[in-house]
Amino acid sequence: MKFRLLLSCPDRPGIVAEVSQLIANSGGNVVAAAQFTDPISQHFFMRYEVEVEGAFEEEYKLRTTLEQGLAGLLRAPEASLVVCPAESRPKVALMASKASHCLVDVLQRWRTNELPCDIVCVIANHPHIEEYAGWFKVPFHHVDFSEQDKASAFGDVDALLDQYDVDLTVLARFMQVFPDHLVAKRAGHMINIHHSFLPSFMGARPYEQAHKRGVKLVGATCHYVTADLDQGPIIDQKVTRISHRDTPADLRMKGRMSEKEALARGLKLHLEDRVFVRGNRTVIFD
Amino acid sequence: MKFRLLLSCPDRPGIVAEVSQLIANSGGNVVAAAQFTDPISQHFFMRYEVEVEGAFEEEYKLRTTLEQGLAGLLRAPEASLVVCPAESRPKVALMASKASHCLVDVLQRWRTNELPCDIVCVIANHPHIEEYAGWFKVPFHHVDFSEQDKASAFGDVDALLDQYDVDLTVLARFMQVFPDHLVAKRAGHMINIHHSFLPSFMGARPYEQAHKRGVKLVGATCHYVTADLDQGPIIDQKVTRISHRDTPADLRMKGRMSEKEALARGLKLHLEDRVFVRGNRTVIFD
Amino acid sequence: MKFRLLLSCPDRPGIVAEVSQLIANSGGNVVAAAQFTDPISQHFFMRYEVEVEGAFEEEYKLRTTLEQGLAGLLRAPEASLVVCPAESRPKVALMASKASHCLVDVLQRWRTNELPCDIVCVIANHPHIEEYAGWFKVPFHHVDFSEQDKASAFGDVDALLDQYDVDLTVLARFMQVFPDHLVAKRAGHMINIHHSFLPSFMGARPYEQAHKRGVKLVGATCHYVTADLDQGPIIDQKVTRISHRDTPADLRMKGRMSEKEALARGLKLHLEDRVFVRGNRTVIFD
Amino acid sequence: MKFRLLLSCPDRPGIVAEVSQLIANSGGNVVAAAQFTDPISQHFFMRYEVEVEGAFEEEYKLRTTLEQGLAGLLRAPEASLVVCPAESRPKVALMASKASHCLVDVLQRWRTNELPCDIVCVIANHPHIEEYAGWFKVPFHHVDFSEQDKASAFGDVDALLDQYDVDLTVLARFMQVFPDHLVAKRAGHMINIHHSFLPSFMGARPYEQAHKRGVKLVGATCHYVTADLDQGPIIDQKVTRISHRDTPADLRMKGRMSEKEALARGLKLHLEDRVFVRGNRTVIFD
Repeated sequence: MKFRLLLSCPDRPGIVAEVSQLIANSGGNVVAAAQFTDPISQHFFMRYEVEVEGAFEEEYKLRTTLEQGLAGLLRAPEASLVVCPAESRPKVALMASKASHCLVDVLQRWRTNELPCDIVCVIANHPHIEEYAGWFKVPFHHVDFSEQDKASAFGDVDALLDQYDVDLTVLARFMQVFPDHLVAKRAGHMINIHHSFLPSFMGARPYEQAHKRGVKLVGATCHYVTADLDQGPIIDQKVTRISHRDTPADLRMKGRMSEKEALARGLKLHLEDRVFVRGNRTVIFD
Repeated sequence: MKFRLLLSCPDRPGIVAEVSQLIANSGGNVVAAAQFTDPISQHFFMRYEVEVEGAFEEEYKLRTTLEQGLAGLLRAPEASLVVCPAESRPKVALMASKASHCLVDVLQRWRTNELPCDIVCVIANHPHIEEYAGWFKVPFHHVDFSEQDKASAFGDVDALLDQYDVDLTVLARFMQVFPDHLVAKRAGHMINIHHSFLPSFMGARPYEQAHKRGVKLVGATCHYVTADLDQGPIIDQKVTRISHRDTPADLRMKGRMSEKEALARGLKLHLEDRVFVRGNRTVIFD
Repeated sequence: MKFRLLLSCPDRPGIVAEVSQLIANSGGNVVAAAQFTDPISQHFFMRYEVEVEGAFEEEYKLRTTLEQGLAGLLRAPEASLVVCPAESRPKVALMASKASHCLVDVLQRWRTNELPCDIVCVIANHPHIEEYAGWFKVPFHHVDFSEQDKASAFGDVDALLDQYDVDLTVLARFMQVFPDHLVAKRAGHMINIHHSFLPSFMGARPYEQAHKRGVKLVGATCHYVTADLDQGPIIDQKVTRISHRDTPADLRMKGRMSEKEALARGLKLHLEDRVFVRGNRTVIFD
Repeated sequence: MKFRLLLSCPDRPGIVAEVSQLIANSGGNVVAAAQFTDPISQHFFMRYEVEVEGAFEEEYKLRTTLEQGLAGLLRAPEASLVVCPAESRPKVALMASKASHCLVDVLQRWRTNELPCDIVCVIANHPHIEEYAGWFKVPFHHVDFSEQDKASAFGDVDALLDQYDVDLTVLARFMQVFPDHLVAKRAGHMINIHHSFLPSFMGARPYEQAHKRGVKLVGATCHYVTADLDQGPIIDQKVTRISHRDTPADLRMKGRMSEKEALARGLKLHLEDRVFVRGNRTVIFD
C-alpha cells in the first residue's frame, strides 16, 4: 500500500535521516521524495511517497510510529504531520455562477480521470448550471442570491457543504464573495480561480481593467481563498498573449483558456497533496 | 525607394481608397499594409510600406501629395501623418545604472544587425558601465548623481541628449526617475524597461515585492515613459515561470531574460515605426 | 452589411489601389485590412472586411464589380477571389474515435459562442461518443470500422458528409486514415489535430515516441489534411513543458491541453477566413 | 562545508534510509533532496545537498563512508556515486564558429555570476571571435579548419582541451562535427546547442528546413553530444512563435533568443550537477 507523508516544521539537522529511519523501521520504502527548507524562515517542508507491504492497518502503524518518533519536532508551534493513503479521493464541491467554461472543464477532466477526487455536488446561484451538472450526473443545488439576503443564501451554501461533508470547495467562477466566518471555517480547503494575473486587477471586471490599462498579456490565478479578497496564497498562474485588436469581450473569451488551465493545474496539485501553505506563500512539490 | 506611411485620424468611410489612390497616382506600390479601427473610440490607424521608383526627392513628393489629398482628414484634432524612408536609422541613446544585462544585450543585438538604429552614446550614473560601451566603441558619459543634486544631474543628461540630437532615449535599467519637464520634452521618444509585469509591482524593488506576494510568474514590461511612474503605454510584456525555491536574488537573475526580451522586442517595434500611441494604449502592427 | 474579400494572386504594382477603388465605387468602406506579399514566390495575399450600406443583393454586386475590375489579375493560374458575407456560418462535421477531450472542448466552445459555425453532426467509430453529441443536441452517427472493411466504412462517412452538405470536416482525434480520393475531394476543407509538434513524431503513438526520445516539451499541431499523412499545411501549434517524471500516459494527459488549444485556435482562424494556403505553407491574418 | 551527493543505481527498498543514515552518522545534514525512480527501468536517481561541519578532509570522509556503506548497491553494473563540494567550479571551454550570440550570452552571464564555472578558453574556427574573448579577458585560440584537413584541426582542438584540462566543452554554435573518437573521449562532458526543436530538423540549415515546412514555432535544443549527430540526450528545449511573414533570415534572428536561453539553462543545470543521463534520456532535478 502507498502513503503520502507531509511534514512541515522548523528546520534542524537530521530530520531527513530520522524520518527515513522511522520509515525503514516500519518496513516502508520511499518511492518519491521532495523537500525544501526556506532560507528566510528556516522552515522545513517534506513530501514523501512511501510504499508499505500489507494493507489497511499499516496507515495507522506508520502514522503512530512517525508521530512518536518525531514527537519533539512536532511540538513546535508551526509543525504538522499528515500521513494519508496515496489513493484517497477527497470529496469536492464545485460552485459556479453564470459562466460555465471552468465548471465544464473541471467536470470533463474529472470524468476522464485527470483529477483524483469525487465531485459530490455542484452549487450555483444561476439555475441554468443544472444542465451541466446533469451531463456528468452530479447532484445540483441552486442557491438563489437574488431573492434572499446574502447571509441567508450563504447559510444555505454552508449547510450544503456540511451535508456533503466536502473536503474541498472549488469556486469555478463563482462570483459571490464568501463572508469571513465561512472562509475561516474552511481555511486551506477552498480554492478560487481569479480571471487576472494577480496582484494586478483584483476585484470586479478584471478584463475591463486589463483592457483599460492596455496590457499585452492577460492572466488567470488559482489561489486559496482568504478573508482578503483575491489576496490568498497563489497555487498557479497562467497568461495569454493579446493585442490591441481585442475588446474586453475578446479578452474574456481568450482568457478562458488560462482560467481553465490554471484552475485545473492548481486543483490537481492540491488533490495530490503537493501544496504546502505558509503565510501568504505556497511551497509546491510538482 | 521604400517609404513608411503612418496615418492616424478619426475613422470615416473611404480612407483606404483615398490613400491607396493617392499613392497609385504618385507611382507608388503598397508592399505591406496594416490598419485598425478602434471600435470604442472610432479612431483609425494605418501603416503602409510603399515602394516608389526613383530616389530622394520622391519622399517630398509623396508626402506633399498625401498632405494635400488628405488635408480634410488631417484637420481633425487628433490626426497625424508621417512619411519617412523605410531605411531611416534613428539616433538612440542608452542609459543604465548598475545592472549591465539589458545594456549589453541591446548593444550586442545592435552589433549583429537586429536593431535598425544608430546607438550614438551610452550615459550612466555608475562609472563601471564605461567598459561595456568601450566594447562596442560607443561614446560613454558618466553623470554623477551622488555628488550633485538631482536637478543638476538631469540637466547634464538633458544637455547630452540634446548634444547628440537623439531621436530615442532607452532606459536600459536606468534607476533614476526623470523629472516631469524632461519626460514631457521627450514624450513618445523615451522607452523604459520595468522589471515587473505591470501594473503589478510598480516602483522600487519589484522582485522583492513579487517574492513577498508569492507569485508563480515574474515579468518585465517595456513601455513609454510618462509623468506617472511605470504607468505609461505598454509596448511589450514577457513572463518567466518561477518556484517557491527562488529567493529574491534568484528572481532577479531569472527575470533578466524577460527584461532583455521585452526590451529588445519593444525597441525593435518602435524603431520600425510599428507602434501607435493613443491615450494609455498602444496599437502595434507586427 | 459586412463582407469578407479574399484575394490571392501574383503580385504587381497597384493591386491595393485598384481593389480599394473598386470597393469605394461600389459604396463600400474597408473596416479591416491585411495583406502580405511573399518575398520568395512574389505571391500576393489580401483579406479585407468591407461594409456596404444595404442588403442582400449587395453581395452579388460587390462580387461582380470586383470580378470584372480584376479580370486581368484573376486570369493568372494561381489567382483566386472570394467574396462572402462576414456573418456566414459554415456547416461543420466533427469526427472522433475513442478520446473525447477535443470533441467536448470544440462543442463547449461552440455552445458558448467562441466558434462562428453550425455543427451539424458528430461522426465516430466508437459508439460511446454518442453521449457527448447528445449533451449538445447534435445528431450523432456511429460508423463501425471493426465489422466492415475500411473502404466501405469510409463510403458511409463520405455519404454522411455529403448528406449534411458540410463545408468543413474536423478530425477531433479521429484515428482512421482517410483514403486519398476522399482527401482530394475535400481538399482545404478538412482539418486535423495531430498530437505532436510536427514534423516530429508523425504517425502512430506520438507520445510514446516523444517519451522514448526524451524531449522536454510535447506539442500539438492543427493542420489541413493532405494525402501525405501528418504533412499538410500547418495552421497552429502549441507546446507544453514536461519532465523526466512523466510516463507516456502522463504525456497523453498533459498534451490534451495543447491539443485542445491548437485545434480551437486553428478552427477559429479557418472559420473566420483568416487562413490562405499556398503549397505546404499557410498565410494567417490574425 | 557543503557537498553534493549524486547516486544512480538499480532501485530496491531502503536506499533513502541507508543513505540518510550514513550521512547522519558522518555528522552531515541534508539541506536539499531530490530523488526519482524510473517506473519503466526501475532505476533510482538521487541528488542530495549535504552540510557537514568542518572542512576539507570531510569530503574524503563522507565519500569513504558512503562508498563503504553502499558497497553492495554500487556493485551493480549501472551504479555510480559522486560526492563533490557544492562550491566546485568546473573548467569550461567555449567553442564557436561564425555566430557570436550564444558565445557572448554565455560569457556575459558568467561575468554576472549566473554560471558557477571557470571559463578557461575560447576556441573558434573563425578569427573574428577573438575580439569577444578579449572583452571578457579569456584566452583565445583560433583553429583553422580551412587550411588543414579536418582530422588535423580536431587534433589541435583536442590538444587545447587537454592542455586546459577542461571539465566541460560547450559548443556555442560551433558548426564542425566532432569525430567519433573525440566524442567518446569526452562523453557526458560536451554540450551542444542545436538551432531546432529536436528531433525536427536535424543537421544543416534547420531554419531553412523550418521555413520550408511552414511550422508556426521554431525552437532550440541543448543536448549532450554523442556519436549520432543531434541525437544525444536532451537537457532543455525552448520555442518561439513565428509567422508566415518571417523569412529564413528572420527565423535565424528570432531563434537566437531560444538558443541563448536553452543553452544557458542547460549549461547551468549541468554545472550544478542537476542532470543525470541514462540511455538517451535525462533526469533533471531543478
